[in-house]
Amino acid sequence: MQELPDPGAAKTARPLRIAIAGLGTVGGGVAKALRSRERELFARAGRPLEIVMITARDRAKDRGFDHSDLPWADDLAALAASDADVVVELIGGDGGPALRLVELALSAGKHVVTANKALLAHHGARLAVLAEEKNVALKFEAAAAGGIPIVKALRESLLAYGIDTVRGILNGTCNYILTQMEVTGAPFGEVLGQAQRLGFAEADPSLDIGGGDTAHKLALLSALAFGVTPDIGHITVEGIDAIEPEDIGFAKEFGYRIKLLGIARATRQGLDRRVQPTMVKLGTPLADVDGPFNAVVVHAGEAGPFVFEGRGAGEAPTASAVIADIVDIARGSNGAVFGRAASALARPVRAPMEARVSPFYLRFHALDQPGVLSEISGHLANAGISIGSMIQRGRAPGGTVVIVMITHECPEPAVRRALKAIDASDKVRGASRVIPMEAV
Amino acid sequence: MQELPDPGAAKTARPLRIAIAGLGTVGGGVAKALRSRERELFARAGRPLEIVMITARDRAKDRGFDHSDLPWADDLAALAASDADVVVELIGGDGGPALRLVELALSAGKHVVTANKALLAHHGARLAVLAEEKNVALKFEAAAAGGIPIVKALRESLLAYGIDTVRGILNGTCNYILTQMEVTGAPFGEVLGQAQRLGFAEADPSLDIGGGDTAHKLALLSALAFGVTPDIGHITVEGIDAIEPEDIGFAKEFGYRIKLLGIARATRQGLDRRVQPTMVKLGTPLADVDGPFNAVVVHAGEAGPFVFEGRGAGEAPTASAVIADIVDIARGSNGAVFGRAASALARPVRAPMEARVSPFYLRFHALDQPGVLSEISGHLANAGISIGSMIQRGRAPGGTVVIVMITHECPEPAVRRALKAIDASDKVRGASRVIPMEAV
Repeated sequence: MQELPDPGAAKTARPLRIAIAGLGTVGGGVAKALRSRERELFARAGRPLEIVMITARDRAKDRGFDHSDLPWADDLAALAASDADVVVELIGGDGGPALRLVELALSAGKHVVTANKALLAHHGARLAVLAEEKNVALKFEAAAAGGIPIVKALRESLLAYGIDTVRGILNGTCNYILTQMEVTGAPFGEVLGQAQRLGFAEADPSLDIGGGDTAHKLALLSALAFGVTPDIGHITVEGIDAIEPEDIGFAKEFGYRIKLLGIARATRQGLDRRVQPTMVKLGTPLADVDGPFNAVVVHAGEAGPFVFEGRGAGEAPTASAVIADIVDIARGSNGAVFGRAASALARPVRAPMEARVSPFYLRFHALDQPGVLSEISGHLANAGISIGSMIQRGRAPGGTVVIVMITHECPEPAVRRALKAIDASDKVRGASRVIPMEAV
Repeated sequence: MQELPDPGAAKTARPLRIAIAGLGTVGGGVAKALRSRERELFARAGRPLEIVMITARDRAKDRGFDHSDLPWADDLAALAASDADVVVELIGGDGGPALRLVELALSAGKHVVTANKALLAHHGARLAVLAEEKNVALKFEAAAAGGIPIVKALRESLLAYGIDTVRGILNGTCNYILTQMEVTGAPFGEVLGQAQRLGFAEADPSLDIGGGDTAHKLALLSALAFGVTPDIGHITVEGIDAIEPEDIGFAKEFGYRIKLLGIARATRQGLDRRVQPTMVKLGTPLADVDGPFNAVVVHAGEAGPFVFEGRGAGEAPTASAVIADIVDIARGSNGAVFGRAASALARPVRAPMEARVSPFYLRFHALDQPGVLSEISGHLANAGISIGSMIQRGRAPGGTVVIVMITHECPEPAVRRALKAIDASDKVRGASRVIPMEAV
């Protein structure tokens, strides 16, 4: 349908020379797409994109595509010292070889493209300074939400009005597990095991289900949105492993769905950033994001909300993001790493817990005897919390019943205080569950 | 929370000089935001953004902000001949002064930012050539879907894999009217009148409700997505004025909602592009886009789908898009106008009507007498169309009843052929309604 320039014919445009470290799912996908889409990408980049060197842990491994004609680097130093213009870091890990390679490459005046959220959440501020000193690009579209072009959107598009909040479903493993728990009614452990067998969860899933991966991504998005250094130190992180099927069921009864959200919100007292299971109102954009998808909602005064949704992981979505960064570099775009000069990034000021105001879902297992409800509601009243609605289910004389309450808007510390008193009661069994609710 | 460089202190970074033509809602919003967010935008752009000249039809008009200190150009030629680096065209219209200004500005070697979809859908290919000859940018983020950064996403992000389809709700007026028709049950004319009184529809709404505005935007999106010249000539366009409340009601019964979609789809025989009311399955991303919002869904092989949603019009969303383009230019990004060299854009090849295959919603008003259903289904069978489900409602001996059918997937020409025969029957009253259905 379209006529593209013949790569062979263009002698004038100098190729962009690319070195790739890491040939797993993403690295292999990048290498394959760069070659199979050579003509189209030339048209988009305005110059040929040429892989000049690759490396990975195991040269002999079968990767499902032929790379025998590509020069192999025996170590990362050789890659960083090659004649590549761009080094693509797809090794992973928050330090070690990935960090060493990125430092070497930037120091050698090479542009860097990475999908490594952990690396940037730990070392991003310093690496951005290094990239600026060397006047090279450090790009990371694939690090934040898989294929969704949210890094570019925050860096280059949503900047005319101040951003109020960034909320995201940023981990496909957690979202898949929560979706499956709702669909099947099965408990967390069982669904996790199944997800691992299907390849939707890692053998060691702790970084995903514990919320750490979401925190890394939230650190990058809040750096872009709020002009702060990427820094996970001040992010409250809670994973999904304590979510029980009954909570998912009650959420549905109240018109909500439980999602693991990363939330960054500008308040007058600082930046409120947290990763936690959250009740999201059905009918709002984040509630309908199912399975392995990611989504980000950005509020920016009267300009927003903006909603972005797409696949959060996998070969094609992630390779798509990496290649977009490479084409950007080919076109000469090496703007500020986090959207403004690295020296202009402020250290995030943490909003106090009091700044977290929302309705909360509270769930108790209590003895089925007179006075229990009065005691629980007394503790809530003492903390200044009023109740919007309540469900008490089942009759179990001598046993326990489940009591669920939805509070009106209240500050989180008040809820924590009340729950401490309630959990200390001899009428309450096991730990109570508290989940914040978001209505937008 | 963040420390920004003081604009006054930076003597080294040369300001980007901006001239604005048109000071309506969008132009006024751009001017206001450039001034009120001066420090933040300096940090994002890496240099000061300075308005050096403005003009509009009526200098004396009260625009709700003070622009008395800004140099006023008495005509467009003066603006184009000013010392501005960028001319921002917010006059509107598919030719006339807007076209003249853009031609003058590009010819004078100035970058141009415009929100004018009509202008680019009619003259974009030629203007892109001119911009490239002069090595200046021609940017139009605000022209396609208000505040949604879909132009940048298609131009710079979603390029590694081939795009299969672009579907969008691109006109907020139509979406508002359809949403209100569903909510209130009122007929089109009544809801349109109300929308006009509330300022959600223009005094002359024909470009919106007739689908022309959506076609302009679809032309721009398909140029970016498929590498073709922006060109509305080959787009089938049908507006929303014939949609009746009963169709909206039946859609709901079948689990669908009627939206005015712009659809561009790559087929083996060419590009299938159309603007038409479409039944969108509830639970899919486009079905939940209500009121004045716009949304775009892009399928790109295994990398997609990608979903983008945001406000389609209004001061802040549109000014946000215009300012993002200005900041891009300030940062030195003047990549290809439509994502590849203007000379590489192919003329779109129109897919034959046979390439349009989908289920269809068919609605008839027919006499309540024996043999009617048999005649209608006979005509459908003759065209090779099979029926998935059917509703016949009401008993009106001697009068008419309504018959609704959902077909299995079939080519559109077959449906048109069958309907022609059915509408010619003396047992059918009035024109039948046919609406294609989209399940993704």
